[in-house]
Amino acid sequence: MRHMLNPLDFSVEETNQLLDLATDIMSDPDKYAHVCDRKKIATLFYEPSTRTRLSFETAMLNLGGSVIGFSSSQSSSASKGESVSDTIRVISCFADIAAIRHPKEGAAIVAASKSSIPVINAGDGGHQHPTQTLTDLMTIRTLKGRLDHMTVGLCGDLKFGRTVHSLINALSRYEGIRFVLISPPELRVPDYIKEDVLDPKGIEYKEVVSLDDVIPELDVLYMTRVQRERFFNEEDYLRMKGFYILDARKMKLAKDDMYVLHPLPRVNEITVEVDDDPRAAYFKQVQFGVYVRMALIMTLLGVEKPC
Amino acid sequence: MRHMLNPLDFSVEETNQLLDLATDIMSDPDKYAHVCDRKKIATLFYEPSTRTRLSFETAMLNLGGSVIGFSSSQSSSASKGESVSDTIRVISCFADIAAIRHPKEGAAIVAASKSSIPVINAGDGGHQHPTQTLTDLMTIRTLKGRLDHMTVGLCGDLKFGRTVHSLINALSRYEGIRFVLISPPELRVPDYIKEDVLDPKGIEYKEVVSLDDVIPELDVLYMTRVQRERFFNEEDYLRMKGFYILDARKMKLAKDDMYVLHPLPRVNEITVEVDDDPRAAYFKQVQFGVYVRMALIMTLLGVEKPC
Amino acid sequence: MRHMLNPLDFSVEETNQLLDLATDIMSDPDKYAHVCDRKKIATLFYEPSTRTRLSFETAMLNLGGSVIGFSSSQSSSASKGESVSDTIRVISCFADIAAIRHPKEGAAIVAASKSSIPVINAGDGGHQHPTQTLTDLMTIRTLKGRLDHMTVGLCGDLKFGRTVHSLINALSRYEGIRFVLISPPELRVPDYIKEDVLDPKGIEYKEVVSLDDVIPELDVLYMTRVQRERFFNEEDYLRMKGFYILDARKMKLAKDDMYVLHPLPRVNEITVEVDDDPRAAYFKQVQFGVYVRMALIMTLLGVEKPC
Repeated sequence: MRHMLNPLDFSVEETNQLLDLATDIMSDPDKYAHVCDRKKIATLFYEPSTRTRLSFETAMLNLGGSVIGFSSSQSSSASKGESVSDTIRVISCFADIAAIRHPKEGAAIVAASKSSIPVINAGDGGHQHPTQTLTDLMTIRTLKGRLDHMTVGLCGDLKFGRTVHSLINALSRYEGIRFVLISPPELRVPDYIKEDVLDPKGIEYKEVVSLDDVIPELDVLYMTRVQRERFFNEEDYLRMKGFYILDARKMKLAKDDMYVLHPLPRVNEITVEVDDDPRAAYFKQVQFGVYVRMALIMTLLGVEKPC
Repeated sequence: MRHMLNPLDFSVEETNQLLDLATDIMSDPDKYAHVCDRKKIATLFYEPSTRTRLSFETAMLNLGGSVIGFSSSQSSSASKGESVSDTIRVISCFADIAAIRHPKEGAAIVAASKSSIPVINAGDGGHQHPTQTLTDLMTIRTLKGRLDHMTVGLCGDLKFGRTVHSLINALSRYEGIRFVLISPPELRVPDYIKEDVLDPKGIEYKEVVSLDDVIPELDVLYMTRVQRERFFNEEDYLRMKGFYILDARKMKLAKDDMYVLHPLPRVNEITVEVDDDPRAAYFKQVQFGVYVRMALIMTLLGVEKPC
Repeated sequence: MRHMLNPLDFSVEETNQLLDLATDIMSDPDKYAHVCDRKKIATLFYEPSTRTRLSFETAMLNLGGSVIGFSSSQSSSASKGESVSDTIRVISCFADIAAIRHPKEGAAIVAASKSSIPVINAGDGGHQHPTQTLTDLMTIRTLKGRLDHMTVGLCGDLKFGRTVHSLINALSRYEGIRFVLISPPELRVPDYIKEDVLDPKGIEYKEVVSLDDVIPELDVLYMTRVQRERFFNEEDYLRMKGFYILDARKMKLAKDDMYVLHPLPRVNEITVEVDDDPRAAYFKQVQFGVYVRMALIMTLLGVEKPC
């Protein structure tokens, strides 16, 4: 039995197979409409996340299965002091697969260790969120036609943003990737990412403060939110926040095929005028996320691809 | 693509067609058990409403479809600051149709403007709640056999009650409707309803303070709740509240075929002794509401009536 | 139409038939995969309980049916003052059967009195929780091969624990049952249980303070939680809490076929080292609970056992 706790749990080859399956699902969803008939996914969300939870539920329903679960810890037994380990053993009696979101790092690993059904980490604190990373890979591969040989800009809060760290890890396994890390000095990518991932693999990267300066050279721009409370002082925030808001003016500086991704929810770091730009890929990304999750559920459940 | 944001979005002819479809569903629900197989409704409830939410979910399940959604803003991404516009674009990737309930007026219109799936307004603040109005029309038409030529009493809080305003609007499109507006002076129907709807159409109406005085002349009595906090002072409330509580004694004054409707939830404005009166239609109304919502989902999704 | 409000609503013969059906379901679940196609259960949880709610939902999904409901009173119309009586009349228009959990004793009885669909009491305050009791009986019968002629230890809070009272009631209907009641003096079984159930039926029982002293003589050990706040004073709690924590050392004193049950959630009254003991039956109990609820739903809906 396999789980999906960390985006790197799957080898590059396995990841590519998963994305191939997702691509096939996208091209002919009807073929997959009953492959999980009578299967159940449990969505165990100890903190709310509409988009992620509904994406998993949609994925399972699209495969013919059904859903049980909870959407916040208030409506779960956690409020009575039950441990995650006990909850997953209980849930193992109910469902065939579980997606767990928990504010504590490592919660999904603990769950998996006691589970008798496959566990998908749907986000554990600031730690991992592998289906977001798989979604990002699917989006880039589908829109750009490849996952290698490109310049990827990561913009915003690169210090605390778990999706950014995961994506760097995942893309670092492909050839010819170059990163442009765009953030305020306070919110740079942590040193361990550079020391453990980028430097040992000899991956080219640079760190800059202003998006304007580098946007023309990017093939992909991954935006994240910069929260006011992350800054050391208010003046820094006011001075720099404009550097990290993507608008129509900045988009004019970018290549014609530079796609913009964002893990959502978006607050104001991308202005709504960008939404209609054909290069805005953040809502398409949501759709890709459904196909990726369908492929992942099938893979972890060992469901064969139908002929 | 069509939405249902306001009860008047459908013409009289379209409304009649919808009620015809609902009536056919009621007469043979089995025929419709699979017309929405593999379709999904998203119930986006930013404020709780058991009855309305479960009515939509029941309607979709009865058609063979399935359900995703959230039942309060606490368990949604709204708590992270996501806009309704962004949420509906995300939901458009998951579901085939959405029912949205939001405390802010106009929220459903905003959602519809960005949606790529049909949006049903399931209540936006004090504004509109079109499926309640369609349910009211279905109930009256089924029990009375017609929607024209009758005297309709509306009783209780006629100032803030959105269901009352919508029903006046909707019934004003039929011939020979006469309204009796029964409320405390503080809670009369707003002037704009009289000036914009009743007067221009030459619709007969009168305003009275006591239900007792007029109940014998009514063909339909639509009850709503009078909340203590709506009164200017406590004495007025204590003096008048009895005028607006429907009990067995008042029912004796009414016609044998005067049906009582109420949008529910009922608190104490109809005493429980009335529940067993055959003219009490407020729980039947709930059942009619399911058929109307089934018909509406089919209509907005463009699902053909099965042979 | 029948309800399940109290574990004793079913006679011994009916209970045995229900357990027979649950056993058949367990042996061949596929045979039952569509017996409730197009049926709906409403889970009306006015207080949260993941395990119980999801067990009902799983049971209905396993039978081919579907689910509507709410998981806390915050997301229900109860917050608008709707009575349980009105809610169940509304729900009767939506679902085929309802499971209700409510903090007030008697809430399920009130609901049943107004319901036009079968109502299952899924816990009403400290009062009854019949599907837990049926689950306990199913677990004991399956693991021990019988429900009579055995010594059953009940350990922990025997004063407030509703599952304990119900289980005593239910087992008292079988021959040759002997109870060992293990609790702090403050938390003994209430006198009315002894006077109304144990004494009139001449059932053998003894009351002890320490689990160690009696564990060797037990055939079944039913553990419950002892909450600190139930004790008269802190010294008593500290002095005695160890008596009621089941660990590997105590398990060594027990028979090789003494099964340990617990209604869950477990906090620390059974140490995790016990989980791997083959006599630990509390997670199996969850699985049995699904089969029992499947059998109960079928029975109350009058669904025939398929050939």
